[in-house]
Amino acid sequence: MLIVQKYGGTSVGTIARIKRVAKRCLETQRQGHQVAVVVSAMAGETNRLLGLARKIHDDPNDREVDVIVATGEQVSVGLVALAIRKLGGQAMSFLGHQVKVTTDSAFARARILSIDAERVHAAFRDGKIAVIAGFQGIDEAGNITTLGRGGSDTTGVAIAAALKADACEIYTDVDGVYTTDPNICPLARKIERVSYEEMLELASLGAKVLQIRSVELGMKYGVPIHVRSSFNHNPGTWVVPEEKAMEHVVVAGVSVNRDEAKITVLGVPDQPGVAARIFAPLSEANIVVDMIIQNVSAEGRTDLTFTVPKGDLKRAIEFLKTRCGDLCDGGRRVVANDAIAKVSVVGVGMRSHAGVAQRMFDLLAKEGINILMISTSEIRISVAVEAKYAELAVRVLHDGFGLDKPPEARVSVG
Amino acid sequence: MLIVQKYGGTSVGTIARIKRVAKRCLETQRQGHQVAVVVSAMAGETNRLLGLARKIHDDPNDREVDVIVATGEQVSVGLVALAIRKLGGQAMSFLGHQVKVTTDSAFARARILSIDAERVHAAFRDGKIAVIAGFQGIDEAGNITTLGRGGSDTTGVAIAAALKADACEIYTDVDGVYTTDPNICPLARKIERVSYEEMLELASLGAKVLQIRSVELGMKYGVPIHVRSSFNHNPGTWVVPEEKAMEHVVVAGVSVNRDEAKITVLGVPDQPGVAARIFAPLSEANIVVDMIIQNVSAEGRTDLTFTVPKGDLKRAIEFLKTRCGDLCDGGRRVVANDAIAKVSVVGVGMRSHAGVAQRMFDLLAKEGINILMISTSEIRISVAVEAKYAELAVRVLHDGFGLDKPPEARVSVG
Repeated sequence: MLIVQKYGGTSVGTIARIKRVAKRCLETQRQGHQVAVVVSAMAGETNRLLGLARKIHDDPNDREVDVIVATGEQVSVGLVALAIRKLGGQAMSFLGHQVKVTTDSAFARARILSIDAERVHAAFRDGKIAVIAGFQGIDEAGNITTLGRGGSDTTGVAIAAALKADACEIYTDVDGVYTTDPNICPLARKIERVSYEEMLELASLGAKVLQIRSVELGMKYGVPIHVRSSFNHNPGTWVVPEEKAMEHVVVAGVSVNRDEAKITVLGVPDQPGVAARIFAPLSEANIVVDMIIQNVSAEGRTDLTFTVPKGDLKRAIEFLKTRCGDLCDGGRRVVANDAIAKVSVVGVGMRSHAGVAQRMFDLLAKEGINILMISTSEIRISVAVEAKYAELAVRVLHDGFGLDKPPEARVSVG
Repeated sequence: MLIVQKYGGTSVGTIARIKRVAKRCLETQRQGHQVAVVVSAMAGETNRLLGLARKIHDDPNDREVDVIVATGEQVSVGLVALAIRKLGGQAMSFLGHQVKVTTDSAFARARILSIDAERVHAAFRDGKIAVIAGFQGIDEAGNITTLGRGGSDTTGVAIAAALKADACEIYTDVDGVYTTDPNICPLARKIERVSYEEMLELASLGAKVLQIRSVELGMKYGVPIHVRSSFNHNPGTWVVPEEKAMEHVVVAGVSVNRDEAKITVLGVPDQPGVAARIFAPLSEANIVVDMIIQNVSAEGRTDLTFTVPKGDLKRAIEFLKTRCGDLCDGGRRVVANDAIAKVSVVGVGMRSHAGVAQRMFDLLAKEGINILMISTSEIRISVAVEAKYAELAVRVLHDGFGLDKPPEARVSVG
């Protein structure tokens, strides 16, 4: 098989850990596989380099900042390749420009356009392990670019896609993706298999272990992603195309997001074009609006409620005041609340199982948790609740949908 | 004019110093010049990176070690470019592979084969200062290479040659090249102009401020090199093609080298092929023999004396014992002495002035300094003396040849 292994900054954070990574790569190769390894900068290194740049210049989205931070991964690939050779293996490092990880020119957040896998295949033919720098690429003019935080996951999956690898193993410091945050819910279980779509909807669970863009890329190219621990040999979580068996699992996981705040504009005229006038300035200001609810109209007026990232709350209110003050009485009819949490249940089984929403609302109601907003997708139901109920809501839903039991033992709903 | 400025590790050793370098580059540009800057890694960084590599692998002459250490210069160019922009200038960094500093594949000690200056000229056309990573290149297969210690000087001169620059300024922490080591001789004077050939012969003086290979390269392409301090605006030392006026200065400088040891093989047969038999094993072992003297023959036997680097002394004696034991009675007729120093007077004026050697021997004799060996080139006379006399010999020769006075005030000899 052809296996891509991606190791994060913690896994290569010290010389001792780099040696352990080298050992693991070599073990995999000696099992008869072709191995490409994608590595991040040693833990703390990217921040150290950004800190140096910031002492001179504030804007992090800069060609030169990318030149500076890309060195973190360059050091890592050299060290990992040396460590593999020290153990008697053969290895060769590759930088972004050497495997032509071609990206657009959006410095600090570039997107991969293509990869030339030929040099990696040549290394395989020589019996070598290819050690590839994550996070970095070059644009078409040959400038160094970086992919943004967590970009090494994306490099890993992109390399796997370019090599047509059998799997992309993402090594991290946890055992996999859990049915919910184990810190909130001690009965959370490791998920064995989850579909790309579910993983995307569970973003807030996955974000700690797997960059969301890498999941999108995996879905696009059908790369099986295996999220697992670099500290043991246990199987982790496979993120794969949707499978028939997944449908029987109605709810795959419960996620919680505390990064949003709620804004209500009271008593706006219930007529065409009003919503557009309210959201246009937010969109121009690059403020992402997530949930949107419009209450029933009374006397030709209605309340419009939506959520924005907490960090954008102040700015959003300012924009509303200045850009559509006539609609909200100069801001006097704007009400904000940042003490909310969004709790979601996710599962491809929802497509074929009715009654999930009803069951969810019942479970919350039994605990006296009031639902502030609701939004849904085909495989997700999200509710906004008061922040103080967040943990309780997660536990109630997690156990209520049987996520504390193995998939085969869960009681079907609906 | 088109000026290349090269700043060493000390000059970019801190963020504050990087800002000062940026200011200086920008001042030069604002005087109406096109400016390319070549920078080294921040002081200490190359050693830190080599230290990381050594924790894993011992051999420093390795493809992967070059990948690792090349990051030092990469960080520097990014920071310098940012600093220039922060001051309102325009700048763009270039790595070895971006200006195609093509080298051979001798990792850790690669030699530059060619440079593609087109991207630098394009930066100039946009009004930009080009900030180029010293020390690094790529071989023809696209592997990262490095040029060895002090390699940034060589990059500077090579870039200047490729750009057909009017001057290559080498910035360092001293004011220039001195007539001798000022620590030995307080009356040492800064040399204003010196020829490439003299600079090469004065290696031991120059080595502290200018890598010898960069002088060879400057000579090959006729690049005027200006060695000067980054801490002030004083003119430093120009290293240039030989000029008519230089001939009037009989002795340009006095250098001292304490890195050699002396070996005498006593009573070898005075017949053809003996010297070849003695030096062949040393040559095979890559031991560089410098001075060689063969005394007059007595009764068909002669003494052969030569110097080798101190670090190779033990190895050299072992080789003599094992490879030509018949010539030296199994080593019993080998005498070694590592308490010697080589003192040289150098000057292109020697070509047209007789009597320099005589004057040198007189000056040393007056102080009772015994000469152990003598060797000469067209523009240099070197003597080996007992190490304890080294400083005294340097002072006697320096002042005896009038180097404590400005060139025009020196009394001609011979």
